[in-house]
Amino acid sequence: MKLASLADGSAHGALLVVSRDLTRMTPAQDIAPSLLAAVEQWANCHDALQARYQALNDGHVPGMPYDPTALAAPLPRAPQWCDGSAFLNHGYLMEQAFKLPAIPNVDTVPLMYQGASDDFLGPCDDIPLPDVAHGIDFEGEYGVITDDIPMACTPEQALRRIRLVVQINDVSLRAFTPVEIRSGFGFINAKPSSSFAPVAVTPDELGLAWRNGRVCLPLHIERNGEWFGQPNGQEMHFGFHELIAHAARTRRLRAGTIVGSGTVSNKDRRAGSACIAERRAIEMIDQGQAVTGFLQFGESVTMQAIADDGSRPFGTIAQRFVQALPAQD
Amino acid sequence: MKLASLADGSAHGALLVVSRDLTRMTPAQDIAPSLLAAVEQWANCHDALQARYQALNDGHVPGMPYDPTALAAPLPRAPQWCDGSAFLNHGYLMEQAFKLPAIPNVDTVPLMYQGASDDFLGPCDDIPLPDVAHGIDFEGEYGVITDDIPMACTPEQALRRIRLVVQINDVSLRAFTPVEIRSGFGFINAKPSSSFAPVAVTPDELGLAWRNGRVCLPLHIERNGEWFGQPNGQEMHFGFHELIAHAARTRRLRAGTIVGSGTVSNKDRRAGSACIAERRAIEMIDQGQAVTGFLQFGESVTMQAIADDGSRPFGTIAQRFVQALPAQD
Repeated sequence: MKLASLADGSAHGALLVVSRDLTRMTPAQDIAPSLLAAVEQWANCHDALQARYQALNDGHVPGMPYDPTALAAPLPRAPQWCDGSAFLNHGYLMEQAFKLPAIPNVDTVPLMYQGASDDFLGPCDDIPLPDVAHGIDFEGEYGVITDDIPMACTPEQALRRIRLVVQINDVSLRAFTPVEIRSGFGFINAKPSSSFAPVAVTPDELGLAWRNGRVCLPLHIERNGEWFGQPNGQEMHFGFHELIAHAARTRRLRAGTIVGSGTVSNKDRRAGSACIAERRAIEMIDQGQAVTGFLQFGESVTMQAIADDGSRPFGTIAQRFVQALPAQD
Repeated sequence: MKLASLADGSAHGALLVVSRDLTRMTPAQDIAPSLLAAVEQWANCHDALQARYQALNDGHVPGMPYDPTALAAPLPRAPQWCDGSAFLNHGYLMEQAFKLPAIPNVDTVPLMYQGASDDFLGPCDDIPLPDVAHGIDFEGEYGVITDDIPMACTPEQALRRIRLVVQINDVSLRAFTPVEIRSGFGFINAKPSSSFAPVAVTPDELGLAWRNGRVCLPLHIERNGEWFGQPNGQEMHFGFHELIAHAARTRRLRAGTIVGSGTVSNKDRRAGSACIAERRAIEMIDQGQAVTGFLQFGESVTMQAIADDGSRPFGTIAQRFVQALPAQD
């Protein structure tokens, strides 16, 4: 099934069920007030939500027209957000371009940072940032929303606790990346609020494209309406279940935790890139210098996974980067 | 005033007001359901909470006996947790002991990591961890709970938005620290769930001990009932307002965000240490090798700030480290 959150001004949004073909949506607050509440009570809510979804698909409940501009992120505030860097090709390109030392055991221990999860943006929200000099970039990636994850669980246990799959624009500020990586403490200024595609979907909704804990679909990315890349999620080195088990190695994760794949990246250069930094790295490797600039205010990005039948399982991220207003006293 | 959260099984706990002398506590859910809700609606809740606090102190509301074992962390689930490393003495000792390269600009740009905030422990909760081989350590520190913080706000704007002050045991697993620092992506396995002292207090409650955005009080730490250290918060290189402004440089922070000081550490060796890793570093510098071991299961720690009048403004953290149960299918 497909779930979404109406941006109703509350911290968590109001739960909606969205039709498979993304033409209609209908409230489900009588089942659970928010998507977070549904995930927290998944066993109690699942069947009722599934029935509502089926009824909406069958035209047995009216629904309203699907309107992504009315939607918040599926979880506007998640209990926790852990973002992996599970496409090793991306890391290799960055190392090659910037002549960085290789990170030890990168193919056996997942790279992952803890991000802020209190203020996620909706699929069509403007992305306000303070300064274009910070090297504004997008990152197209996939993610999963988990149930409660016990400490030190196995990847197999984690796989059974993946409730929903999501698509993410992990906004990044590249001017801060080298400084924050060098500190060893990870990202604070380099990772402002991320945004999410309109709908979160249960893994079964992806059919054969959900394999080995991976979203095996191309993620189509356009910058200002021009093709930027369409790397496929199947080249993820670690599956989401392995990323979750890594995050939970020494602590439990509460229901609603989001675990991200990191920028989708493929070895085949014809796939393009899911972030500007990677394209610039390729330019540095191939041409000796980066040519593509980071984002200016007013630029836009669209991101959508495309299924074999041409459908967009998660809907479409379509948003602009804008100048943030100064803080008021 | 002093606020706390009753561990009632809910995600956020039930709001309590605690008497200044930590002898009585009384429900305040009629004012706000949880401490998080109170912080989110601070302007609306403040006067009513202050009146309840005054009435409790004056004996005009009955209250129940203060019982820290019934308490959760003030915010068992916070929107976000950013922990600084603002006592530079601690960092210098670690660099000296481990012959690490100096981090550039450490005295002008705060070191800070993003931690998990979905599962904070109460002041007397056992701390379950999977393996003593992970190098189990405590870290005594101070923190603040903020109101909404606008993006790119100034330290002065941030100072006016500090609502509550807290005392923290930032549990750390030292076996993971070098690996995760080397990755540049910050801490995941090295930072399991942290725990909090019983009460969160408004800055005015600290009187002259709240100065320049710092908690100028000694933090007394005992390991298994033996003195371990009592470093004073006044040597914090950056004030909390400066740490908040750093965290908010490229994003807003939602009300209820907790910002931590990092391990309290003083230049004067007679103050002892607020974490085992620092004592071990001093032993390595002075004696050529670390003598003090990390924690075994069954060991305990107590932490309490002590005011000039001998009172404990935040109450006392008193907890044991125990073996976590294996994950169930």
